[in-house]
Amino acid sequence: MRAAMADAEVGDDVLDRDPTMRELEVRVAGLLGAADALWTPSGSMGNLIALMHHLGRGDAFLAPAGAHVLDAELGTAAWLAGGMPRPLEYDAGPGKVSPTAVRRAAGSIGPYYTLRTTLLCLENTHNAAGGTVTAPEEHAAVVAAARGAKLRVHLDGARLWHAAVALGVPPGTLTVGVDSVQVCLSKGLGAPVGSVVAGSVEFIAEARRLRKMLGGGVRQGGVLAAAGLVALDRIDRLAEDHERAKRLAAGLRERGWLVGEPQTNIVLVAVADLDGTIRRFEEAGVRASTMSGQVRLMTHADLTDADITAALERIGPVEPSRAAGSAPAVSGRGAGARPGRAVLGQAGN
Amino acid sequence: MRAAMADAEVGDDVLDRDPTMRELEVRVAGLLGAADALWTPSGSMGNLIALMHHLGRGDAFLAPAGAHVLDAELGTAAWLAGGMPRPLEYDAGPGKVSPTAVRRAAGSIGPYYTLRTTLLCLENTHNAAGGTVTAPEEHAAVVAAARGAKLRVHLDGARLWHAAVALGVPPGTLTVGVDSVQVCLSKGLGAPVGSVVAGSVEFIAEARRLRKMLGGGVRQGGVLAAAGLVALDRIDRLAEDHERAKRLAAGLRERGWLVGEPQTNIVLVAVADLDGTIRRFEEAGVRASTMSGQVRLMTHADLTDADITAALERIGPVEPSRAAGSAPAVSGRGAGARPGRAVLGQAGN
Amino acid sequence: MRAAMADAEVGDDVLDRDPTMRELEVRVAGLLGAADALWTPSGSMGNLIALMHHLGRGDAFLAPAGAHVLDAELGTAAWLAGGMPRPLEYDAGPGKVSPTAVRRAAGSIGPYYTLRTTLLCLENTHNAAGGTVTAPEEHAAVVAAARGAKLRVHLDGARLWHAAVALGVPPGTLTVGVDSVQVCLSKGLGAPVGSVVAGSVEFIAEARRLRKMLGGGVRQGGVLAAAGLVALDRIDRLAEDHERAKRLAAGLRERGWLVGEPQTNIVLVAVADLDGTIRRFEEAGVRASTMSGQVRLMTHADLTDADITAALERIGPVEPSRAAGSAPAVSGRGAGARPGRAVLGQAGN
Amino acid sequence: MRAAMADAEVGDDVLDRDPTMRELEVRVAGLLGAADALWTPSGSMGNLIALMHHLGRGDAFLAPAGAHVLDAELGTAAWLAGGMPRPLEYDAGPGKVSPTAVRRAAGSIGPYYTLRTTLLCLENTHNAAGGTVTAPEEHAAVVAAARGAKLRVHLDGARLWHAAVALGVPPGTLTVGVDSVQVCLSKGLGAPVGSVVAGSVEFIAEARRLRKMLGGGVRQGGVLAAAGLVALDRIDRLAEDHERAKRLAAGLRERGWLVGEPQTNIVLVAVADLDGTIRRFEEAGVRASTMSGQVRLMTHADLTDADITAALERIGPVEPSRAAGSAPAVSGRGAGARPGRAVLGQAGN
Repeated sequence: MRAAMADAEVGDDVLDRDPTMRELEVRVAGLLGAADALWTPSGSMGNLIALMHHLGRGDAFLAPAGAHVLDAELGTAAWLAGGMPRPLEYDAGPGKVSPTAVRRAAGSIGPYYTLRTTLLCLENTHNAAGGTVTAPEEHAAVVAAARGAKLRVHLDGARLWHAAVALGVPPGTLTVGVDSVQVCLSKGLGAPVGSVVAGSVEFIAEARRLRKMLGGGVRQGGVLAAAGLVALDRIDRLAEDHERAKRLAAGLRERGWLVGEPQTNIVLVAVADLDGTIRRFEEAGVRASTMSGQVRLMTHADLTDADITAALERIGPVEPSRAAGSAPAVSGRGAGARPGRAVLGQAGN
Repeated sequence: MRAAMADAEVGDDVLDRDPTMRELEVRVAGLLGAADALWTPSGSMGNLIALMHHLGRGDAFLAPAGAHVLDAELGTAAWLAGGMPRPLEYDAGPGKVSPTAVRRAAGSIGPYYTLRTTLLCLENTHNAAGGTVTAPEEHAAVVAAARGAKLRVHLDGARLWHAAVALGVPPGTLTVGVDSVQVCLSKGLGAPVGSVVAGSVEFIAEARRLRKMLGGGVRQGGVLAAAGLVALDRIDRLAEDHERAKRLAAGLRERGWLVGEPQTNIVLVAVADLDGTIRRFEEAGVRASTMSGQVRLMTHADLTDADITAALERIGPVEPSRAAGSAPAVSGRGAGARPGRAVLGQAGN
Repeated sequence: MRAAMADAEVGDDVLDRDPTMRELEVRVAGLLGAADALWTPSGSMGNLIALMHHLGRGDAFLAPAGAHVLDAELGTAAWLAGGMPRPLEYDAGPGKVSPTAVRRAAGSIGPYYTLRTTLLCLENTHNAAGGTVTAPEEHAAVVAAARGAKLRVHLDGARLWHAAVALGVPPGTLTVGVDSVQVCLSKGLGAPVGSVVAGSVEFIAEARRLRKMLGGGVRQGGVLAAAGLVALDRIDRLAEDHERAKRLAAGLRERGWLVGEPQTNIVLVAVADLDGTIRRFEEAGVRASTMSGQVRLMTHADLTDADITAALERIGPVEPSRAAGSAPAVSGRGAGARPGRAVLGQAGN
Repeated sequence: MRAAMADAEVGDDVLDRDPTMRELEVRVAGLLGAADALWTPSGSMGNLIALMHHLGRGDAFLAPAGAHVLDAELGTAAWLAGGMPRPLEYDAGPGKVSPTAVRRAAGSIGPYYTLRTTLLCLENTHNAAGGTVTAPEEHAAVVAAARGAKLRVHLDGARLWHAAVALGVPPGTLTVGVDSVQVCLSKGLGAPVGSVVAGSVEFIAEARRLRKMLGGGVRQGGVLAAAGLVALDRIDRLAEDHERAKRLAAGLRERGWLVGEPQTNIVLVAVADLDGTIRRFEEAGVRASTMSGQVRLMTHADLTDADITAALERIGPVEPSRAAGSAPAVSGRGAGARPGRAVLGQAGN
């Protein structure tokens, strides 16, 4: 990846187009089935641009509880995009909302003096719920409900690659019907910097202007885009992370920890003493963090099978005082969710 | 009231002080136990000013689900005050949240890249929950929890007079410990226009500037303040509205309608066919509206006992098809709440 | 006026329409040649609503230097309406800009990463320039230049009545071609509270929503509208104020003060010692204030010819130390302008 | 530079600190005499963060006409930072304002209902005025005037390196007394991406949060910071660009073009037919753009002496129809300024 960055052909991406940036954007648009795409320095900026574009002043938007746009972007959906968030409880599995819930919450357009709900933000996989996966048919049904209620749809796909690999489907099957989607190059895929938003040609034209406003236009961005192109070649590798997450979860269960079955690369461990457990894990050389009131562990590209084995040995069996009294369901509303990370070794969020 | 308006002494309230305005503000501050107060053209502006003052960019704030600042102020808490709303379920009775829920949701201050929760917005009585009353000791406990979590507290007291009358306590016992409170002169009290926000001297100084920014500074406002002063003399009269609401609810129950016991002047009727029932009520000369998925009826100053009797006769017994299958609890999260009004005869919100 | 207020028929102007409000709005729309109109609690709110409606995020707008929207609305054109102000020097007389200046400043639409100028804000009469009048043909030429450059046009007509009376033309001849106009009922006309914005039916529909957002929707506003209707009957009376302003200016000149010829009811006096002169005037019972680096005096409905005579006597001749060295032209860019008021006796802004 | 990027040590700069980022930030802080510093993806974001931090809602700020924050950042100073711009004419040489002008424009704090001016934004070198240089003693005098008027001071130093080199002084002598300064790594210095803001420890802590909000927090930013570190080693090389700009200007003058003496690396050419001249230059292989109503040419690291010679030959003598009638002074107010670039060969802005 570093070699690709060192060799990248560059231009001025603010004024004209950086050719490597452009190659990356066109390739991602293709993967996502979108007409056009735009690089952004972060996933947060990608989401923010989409919300700014879709939302009018004070418009309400729906999102599953614990969504990144609700809890982990410093309130920018409200104060910068001007949107009024309306979190939806999970009624279709962890991290997921049903078509009925969307329809009911969207309601109909009321008189001039009433709040208008105009947007649904989805997240796949849903980070705070534990990297949970929404399948194409579930996605399509929820999007259809939103469309029927005249909502626009934005998909926070920072971890969309994980969902596609876990399901064994092309990423484009998970973006059907959305107005915009954001995908991240720097989380599981390992590029140092950057995300991509995709959508219609008109949306991307406006997104480019909004990116400049926010200060996200960069000059010779090709050095970063080159890394992104390499990252895209590694999508299939995520299957290994998922496999290792399953092994990690199984091993922890064997040692008495209360762990659900991971759907992708996120392992949530329910414990009674959150801070104490994270400290203990850290002492054992395993970096962890809190997520939705549980301990979050994450597998990634820099880990090997041996790392998992070693981590399990170092963590060892749960002490009775650390165990949760009973398995907490993944928090219904995500109210306690705090952004953070939990890693085995290095990378994050 | 019109006579008082016609005789009001006035000045220029933007530049100096309108004397009648000032008299009103000082009197309301006294009633609420606040150091100072400021007239605003509407309760929405009073709430908005308080939120603008209390919230930093992107700060999260807590409010019971269905709160007016969440659902009935066109998203201005987000796009104008820059706050990220976090609705709380009712876990302490309709419209009410427990100290524990506040403490848990407030959490603690995380790293620099995490959302900060800095404010709790209460509402007493809680309109969307059916005009439900929070007692002084409940109020004090929730405020203490918020203080312990370093939150500021704003109280939307548009209907605080109703709460005080229903409880038989002075209004000032319901504002203990808050940073700001908004009370309305135009709903139950019958002034044509206006609300008052109250708080510290520093808060009111800033509020005055924010009111000017929002375009709420008026010149010879004394004509409106005079009406407000008359309205304040009528607070005790609200007991009649509460009594009539109880009679109305009892009469509807006798006629087979599914109605809870009103705590103040709002009567919520659970029905299967919302729009149809409202139409039927309108045809019977009873103005109604939807609130939290139910039919809302409201008693007010222009109604007599005979009006209640007549309304009950005209409404008559419920048809089986209109009855709700079972009594819906007041919506836990207020997700379906739509601002609106339901009145017997005239006045509103 | 108070009698009219006391007798006003009212409704709930937020929910439906207050009949007296509606009568006022329809009458003002007619006077201004607009399709529809909306009452607002202040001229600042009327201007703010218009700017919010016309401006996209970060759009630049042009306005003559010293305009009320630039200097006297607490920066809300920027932080609430999101507009980037570009003040224009007076190149067509005090308070006025030429078609050429508008065309040159508007420029053409540049690439996506450049500022877009989309609006021209005019002000007639121009307060900070001394109540200066723009005639119909001047107005039409500037508006045509703006249209040619694809700008929208908003007219701050807080003192439009003065311009129409001074020119002897119907107010509607001064609004030709604008997208929106705001007129004030409370300055020269003497209503206690309120302004009106006018424009297309679509604009007013959106303006009504924005007014609610800003907290400017009022309930039984008819009591205020009734005063506004009376005020509209008094427009012609402004001619007396203009006449008295001329007499006042002439009298001051006779006494050695440096005073230009007033075009309407504002008299600007150039002095060396601004604060000292205002104090001296106050001691003489004449309320004055600073405007554009000069002393501002204003004539209004509560003054008689005898008041002018008495004021001149009390003020007396200028002391040499107070006289300005030379007549300052009305400040070219209004850079030193500070909002304030200067009155003979009472009323303001 | 590419090699340095390929070898950079990295971390997660959002969560902890990327070590190479940190090294860059500490080094820039040292160069600028600031307590701390923060990398941003662009100079626009650096300026925006500073304005957001310094400005309260609707606060006015002063800046020399044509400043980048006024004309070339898409109005974000207004709609995102909430500031009301008040451009100052150049009264102390092109791009420069005098202490007196600052003092007069700042005025004093008026009553609660008046605009407050709280910030002065300087720009050194001033791009739109033609890369003009402010010397340390001029800088110090203007900053002292601002301080005396209780203004904060932000310095847009995107081209501060050029000023320091042209003056032969350390960059830290040009930041004395400011609250914040932004310097660019990607313009003259040639790093592909990035700027740095510097200021107090408290300012940088808040800036880091604002950067995250705007979506400018990056993960393994060390690859970019490594390029920035290399760029800092090249500051002295700017002297060559300045020398070549002088040669270019002299050559153009010899050929009859109307060109002033460049102070740094920007050459402004006054012409009658702006678009036609730019097209002609482009056909001659010389990339140019408009700036302040003139043709802008810029020298940079990828140019050699031979390039200058060749450019002059290809451009050739001015045709009479292209020459400006008379040398336009650099536009006094920058009113006609349009952001853009004009380069010989490649790099920009």
